[in-house]
Amino acid sequence: MTLDETIQNIQPVDRECWKRAQARLDRLTKPVGSLGRLEELATCYVAMTGEERPKLPRAAIFTFAADHGVAIEGVSAYPSAVTAQMVLNFLRGGAAVNVLASHVGAEVRVVDIGVAHEFGTVPGLIARKVAQGTKNFLAEPAMSRDEAERALTVGVELGAHAAQEGIGLIGTGDMGIGNTTPSSAITAAMTGEPVASVTGRGTGIDEAGYARKVSVIEQALAFHRPDPRDPLDVLSKVGGFEIAGLAGLILGSAANRIPVVLDGFISGAAALVAAGLQPLCREYMLASHRSVERGHGAVLDWLGLTPLLDLDLRLGEGTGACLGIGLVQASLKILTQMATFDEAGVSERSV
Amino acid sequence: MTLDETIQNIQPVDRECWKRAQARLDRLTKPVGSLGRLEELATCYVAMTGEERPKLPRAAIFTFAADHGVAIEGVSAYPSAVTAQMVLNFLRGGAAVNVLASHVGAEVRVVDIGVAHEFGTVPGLIARKVAQGTKNFLAEPAMSRDEAERALTVGVELGAHAAQEGIGLIGTGDMGIGNTTPSSAITAAMTGEPVASVTGRGTGIDEAGYARKVSVIEQALAFHRPDPRDPLDVLSKVGGFEIAGLAGLILGSAANRIPVVLDGFISGAAALVAAGLQPLCREYMLASHRSVERGHGAVLDWLGLTPLLDLDLRLGEGTGACLGIGLVQASLKILTQMATFDEAGVSERSV
Repeated sequence: MTLDETIQNIQPVDRECWKRAQARLDRLTKPVGSLGRLEELATCYVAMTGEERPKLPRAAIFTFAADHGVAIEGVSAYPSAVTAQMVLNFLRGGAAVNVLASHVGAEVRVVDIGVAHEFGTVPGLIARKVAQGTKNFLAEPAMSRDEAERALTVGVELGAHAAQEGIGLIGTGDMGIGNTTPSSAITAAMTGEPVASVTGRGTGIDEAGYARKVSVIEQALAFHRPDPRDPLDVLSKVGGFEIAGLAGLILGSAANRIPVVLDGFISGAAALVAAGLQPLCREYMLASHRSVERGHGAVLDWLGLTPLLDLDLRLGEGTGACLGIGLVQASLKILTQMATFDEAGVSERSV
Repeated sequence: MTLDETIQNIQPVDRECWKRAQARLDRLTKPVGSLGRLEELATCYVAMTGEERPKLPRAAIFTFAADHGVAIEGVSAYPSAVTAQMVLNFLRGGAAVNVLASHVGAEVRVVDIGVAHEFGTVPGLIARKVAQGTKNFLAEPAMSRDEAERALTVGVELGAHAAQEGIGLIGTGDMGIGNTTPSSAITAAMTGEPVASVTGRGTGIDEAGYARKVSVIEQALAFHRPDPRDPLDVLSKVGGFEIAGLAGLILGSAANRIPVVLDGFISGAAALVAAGLQPLCREYMLASHRSVERGHGAVLDWLGLTPLLDLDLRLGEGTGACLGIGLVQASLKILTQMATFDEAGVSERSV
């Protein structure tokens, strides 16, 4: 399926399924609504998938890795070499996302979609490199429009392939030194918020670095004038390959009725792009957490999502998505494993 | 160990262990501090237990059940018979706490500390009944001072016994139709907040029921004048047996250096009593979530705790504590399973 076909194939979620799931939750041995957002999660999952009594889904985190030409402007606290080093760390299982994915029984799939390093053949790595990193978008577009489409298509295909494999729950993740800079640029371009209000300190730059980062983004937006009605234009001018891949993954998952648990700010920027291409894909998104990174709040507001967790995370990789998946699993177990009032012989409310 | 000895035995947590755990977290392959409250959880656990590289602890939820004489005043949406019915539901594994405890690999221990029902011999039930429910505290003290001490001691002993068994993480839980009423009364008495500002709708009473509930609590406090400097006085006059048991469990856990994951409002009221008896026990508390129930915020503020989750829960039983335990486990895996920068060959920050 092409990118365009995928975008056309996304349907609204099933509101009748939603109602039947809520009706079941209301018969379980607990006061109506007393499990709050866990109940909401279960009904959302059911509406997205159309499965009324879902089994626990096989879950996978897709961590897209890419480098950023703009990193040369000194917008990150870490050198670009760390992107490739962390990819190898993911594949050896030593990173935070590995630990948290294992905690919730999810696989981690690591996608090289644009790392500025030749890995050669590395077991476990999904090699879908579009280019060796983006160009420095302070001086030229981050990528061509064709590259943006190819990177989106990588994500779309991985989502479709996951569906064929029987994966029923997808978490988004990212690795890319410098990638809060394109994410803030995309957020400013898509939401119209001022750059400074959607730009944070990423992995932890100092005051001078932060001022530089804001200035770089402001200059790039003034120079490229990306069109928010054309998300491919935004992506190609000030985006990143992992962000494009994640946007494609979100679209591919939604087209296959797979709920997508969004990680933090980078995933949120990707979700802005995906929702710009097809607003209906928002109905398949669950926001795992509110990142410390300034700008994530604007993203969540624009998407109309309320995050499940607020744990001062700012790591990315898919770490927050893992914790969100744990809550989705808990919600599905509530829906399917609890006794009803009838089954348990428990009296219902008296007033 | 008696109640008094237990109270005397509680020591401050180990701040040197805390520092060493933080130093290790700072060497792991992630930006310093980027896992936010997960890092905080891991360091707290280490400081509480004194274990620098902890194994995943065996976890148990203690769900204390009791009835409340004051329920006769029409302060709950459910009949008192539901307390005993839910105890049987817990023992059969059909309740929300069973599902969520199983989700995080924790046991559920159900304690009859004051249910107004003779269960006879029921496999799995921890039979430690102090009385068949409290008296109606609108008319007389909920329990005698001796009964309050006995109920506290039940909890203390269960905490000590858990330590002997090798349980390393305890979650609190409650079941008792009407028990938000004594919890609000205790909260008002201990914190000095106005009754209306710490009284909510519990399982879901209507407007008239809510007005009655506030009035009952106000009358009871005016009549009994419980002394906040004497938590046993508060407990005996306007408390409940499950609340007393939970307060004892918190003290018993703290004396044995077992971290206690608090559930919602009822557990919070118990924590106020425990902290009133020995302020140091607060150092062993982790607040799992912020309950919808009005009054919980005041409890958390008074205890100086910031909840991990805010998922609009208001069920009790220990359901929120289960989810909190899942996060503690995640935090310990981060501390002990991630690679360091050295191990992974990843470059450290450049600026």
